[in-house]
Amino acid sequence: MSRGLFIGRFQPFHKGHYLALKDILSREDEVIIAIGSTQDSYTLENPLTAGERLEMIYHLLKIEGWLGRAYIVQVPDAHEYAVWPGRVIAYSPKFDRVYSGNEVVLMLFERFGYPTVRIPHYKRDLYKGEEIRRRIIAGEPWEHLVPEPILEKLKEFNFVERILRLAKKSGDE
Amino acid sequence: MSRGLFIGRFQPFHKGHYLALKDILSREDEVIIAIGSTQDSYTLENPLTAGERLEMIYHLLKIEGWLGRAYIVQVPDAHEYAVWPGRVIAYSPKFDRVYSGNEVVLMLFERFGYPTVRIPHYKRDLYKGEEIRRRIIAGEPWEHLVPEPILEKLKEFNFVERILRLAKKSGDE
Amino acid sequence: MSRGLFIGRFQPFHKGHYLALKDILSREDEVIIAIGSTQDSYTLENPLTAGERLEMIYHLLKIEGWLGRAYIVQVPDAHEYAVWPGRVIAYSPKFDRVYSGNEVVLMLFERFGYPTVRIPHYKRDLYKGEEIRRRIIAGEPWEHLVPEPILEKLKEFNFVERILRLAKKSGDE
Amino acid sequence: MSRGLFIGRFQPFHKGHYLALKDILSREDEVIIAIGSTQDSYTLENPLTAGERLEMIYHLLKIEGWLGRAYIVQVPDAHEYAVWPGRVIAYSPKFDRVYSGNEVVLMLFERFGYPTVRIPHYKRDLYKGEEIRRRIIAGEPWEHLVPEPILEKLKEFNFVERILRLAKKSGDE
Amino acid sequence: MSRGLFIGRFQPFHKGHYLALKDILSREDEVIIAIGSTQDSYTLENPLTAGERLEMIYHLLKIEGWLGRAYIVQVPDAHEYAVWPGRVIAYSPKFDRVYSGNEVVLMLFERFGYPTVRIPHYKRDLYKGEEIRRRIIAGEPWEHLVPEPILEKLKEFNFVERILRLAKKSGDE
Amino acid sequence: MSRGLFIGRFQPFHKGHYLALKDILSREDEVIIAIGSTQDSYTLENPLTAGERLEMIYHLLKIEGWLGRAYIVQVPDAHEYAVWPGRVIAYSPKFDRVYSGNEVVLMLFERFGYPTVRIPHYKRDLYKGEEIRRRIIAGEPWEHLVPEPILEKLKEFNFVERILRLAKKSGDE
Repeated sequence: MSRGLFIGRFQPFHKGHYLALKDILSREDEVIIAIGSTQDSYTLENPLTAGERLEMIYHLLKIEGWLGRAYIVQVPDAHEYAVWPGRVIAYSPKFDRVYSGNEVVLMLFERFGYPTVRIPHYKRDLYKGEEIRRRIIAGEPWEHLVPEPILEKLKEFNFVERILRLAKKSGDE
Repeated sequence: MSRGLFIGRFQPFHKGHYLALKDILSREDEVIIAIGSTQDSYTLENPLTAGERLEMIYHLLKIEGWLGRAYIVQVPDAHEYAVWPGRVIAYSPKFDRVYSGNEVVLMLFERFGYPTVRIPHYKRDLYKGEEIRRRIIAGEPWEHLVPEPILEKLKEFNFVERILRLAKKSGDE
Repeated sequence: MSRGLFIGRFQPFHKGHYLALKDILSREDEVIIAIGSTQDSYTLENPLTAGERLEMIYHLLKIEGWLGRAYIVQVPDAHEYAVWPGRVIAYSPKFDRVYSGNEVVLMLFERFGYPTVRIPHYKRDLYKGEEIRRRIIAGEPWEHLVPEPILEKLKEFNFVERILRLAKKSGDE
Repeated sequence: MSRGLFIGRFQPFHKGHYLALKDILSREDEVIIAIGSTQDSYTLENPLTAGERLEMIYHLLKIEGWLGRAYIVQVPDAHEYAVWPGRVIAYSPKFDRVYSGNEVVLMLFERFGYPTVRIPHYKRDLYKGEEIRRRIIAGEPWEHLVPEPILEKLKEFNFVERILRLAKKSGDE
Repeated sequence: MSRGLFIGRFQPFHKGHYLALKDILSREDEVIIAIGSTQDSYTLENPLTAGERLEMIYHLLKIEGWLGRAYIVQVPDAHEYAVWPGRVIAYSPKFDRVYSGNEVVLMLFERFGYPTVRIPHYKRDLYKGEEIRRRIIAGEPWEHLVPEPILEKLKEFNFVERILRLAKKSGDE
Repeated sequence: MSRGLFIGRFQPFHKGHYLALKDILSREDEVIIAIGSTQDSYTLENPLTAGERLEMIYHLLKIEGWLGRAYIVQVPDAHEYAVWPGRVIAYSPKFDRVYSGNEVVLMLFERFGYPTVRIPHYKRDLYKGEEIRRRIIAGEPWEHLVPEPILEKLKEFNFVERILRLAKKSGDE
């Protein structure tokens, strides 16, 4: 029985994440989807709460029939890179390999002796949280960049309205 | 669609938790199982990591066929009771009611306007994490106090050995 | 212009605090009332929130006509004694002397060169937060132990009911 | 009896804050002035300590005769937006409405069911902490941008000297 | 080149620590002395600051001629056992083995694959921080329980007076 | 006996630090080298761990024959400037003077009554952590900017490879 760890912030979960997840599921028996920076929400960079991110990923897993092979864990930042892998390990079932597209994540787990796999970026300029948030603010089409079940949940969360309010120039506090 | 929130530390998940969970599932469409004090592990009071607790509950849900109706969330303590419900809310999908046997938990959520349900204690003196840990240290039978799928995972985690080592009188640091 | 700092948790503000405050106001032009452990509330030891504590003290100051000579500051614990006086200093207007009945508080401020005054305990066994909370749980008279304006506010906050709920033996989480 | 909550960092308290405060006092019986980010000081963005900010606002309230209708509370950042309103609530007397010019503050309190009022910006480009700090560094006139009692206190705190030192290009640590 | 890690709180450094240190130096080329719980001081349990602990150990190393083979590191608690070894690793030069008399410390490092050595307790009931502090309060002889260079420093720090003040029953805050 | 405190992040320790250290040792009997921001590592701005920084400075002190006159302390950030000097004081042996090239550091210690000395910058544009990191990324010569014993250790730590990996544009999380 093999398990892969897939780490991201998922703000939101997009088609790049979806392709990576599918790829990991083709290589491993089970996958652990680790939602990072769970303490963040209601910022332009991190608009969704940890609960919303969990709910939308759960919904996708359910529709895809992957619930029985995927764990979702929620990992708050340690604000101290050297101890962060220890926290991910403590919040997750045991795993054999770490999948990430982020060079620092790979380095940090290598320090603790974990095998790592560099995830290729699929259509990197499009499948990207930042690009999705930019398009919403600019009023450009973005819905084709996320899987259908995710889109349903984002509508339920009033994602567009939230992004637009967060983008408003705030006053001097 | 209704959702109930069920909060606990689950050190470990025992038959009292199981009966409560079954009861909640008979009243609500979906349940959110919130694992609290996720920062704690490797103490006598809190021996299991957040990942192990998630894994054993997931295993139970899978065997019972409840994976499609139950979310598992992981909530670190806020060390500040007044803000703690806000954190639970942020880490969970939206919910309608809070289930707990703990008076303080009920009070804290009432302050934020949530309906609460007091969970009755089933065989309170037996179905209790503290009692299970006490029995392991004393070498008394304890395995009948947790559901079968939980027991399998506890064996995998070397739960008994961990409890026994944690119980050793530690030296002067 | 001289200023004294008066530190406490005020759970609740009782007649011992009142006598000390009066005494400080007779020696100094102004007093800073520093509410400590502001992060704590809804525990038996620390039942009131920082906001409730501020409100009840403010109410007393208003009725006594002391609002123009007294500042109320709210200082969260540092969980690191050696830096705690630095935090009190940062949250307060400048002060000349520290008043406290707590030996550790006096030591910590002496390290930073502050003159300290040991507050005598007035009817120490009676005028004491712990004793007030004990009496409420035991159903004994306690209302004569707090100044009248404080009592009004405690009623508004449902203090008795809160203490009684907090005292209920909580279930196994 | 109605109470409004007025939140800001007040670095420093300027005429825009003064006009907003006056406006709130005309609509509510009492106002709670919540000083945010109390943990910050001695940075260009947040030069004043929480104690200095409290002292200058207290001084203004005293001179205006508003001490009997205004509470000042000090709220450290939660570094977790979703729980921050819970902390403001815990540090404040109960309130009925939230006043702010900051869109995110309004959103966060709306999530908890609070009525919110968007404060209009008075001479937005002038009445602004950032602009005041910029003018001090540039040696331009700025004193007319803050109310007279605030100015007195800023002089006492050597505000100008502090800003100028903080603005010095610091060396490589 | 081999390095051993020796962890303790050293409140204060006593002859049991000394014998252990000597033993480690006979087995390893270099030793890292890790002072733990550096955030604590001025409590009965943890009277000395991290700086005082470092200074007294440095003084001993100097007199013994061990300065060239021993590092002293200062590690604040993580308040989360599962990540704590990661922090010790980050604050220390690389090491090959962990020496401790504390079962939990050994378990935590074993999880990360480190070889561990259980330190035997030398005169366990005597060579013990708790016993030293108890004797000081009781007015019993204690000076023979710590190495001479440590004693010199403890006198410089007014250790006895500090313990006695900390032991005074503090008033109700 | 006089002691000076020398504070820095030492990312890495360069010849500017070396010259300052030499200068302090010519004025004081002993020096305390305080490594700041110990919680940071594996970022471009702060690539080295606290343990690596301690090890490289220790190595230099050993080679220079300064081990007997220099303490190395490790101080995590307080994320609250007003309390930070209190933390430095608690983590260090007592000191008489603070040496720094950073205006804010000087201001913060002056508030607590410490004499401060402004360290002159030696070849400021060259002897600078930022410049060293920039040169490594650009493939330009940098090794002459750090003392020889430091360079040995940086090689041991694979400093160049780390900087290059950290500089890689990371993917969208």
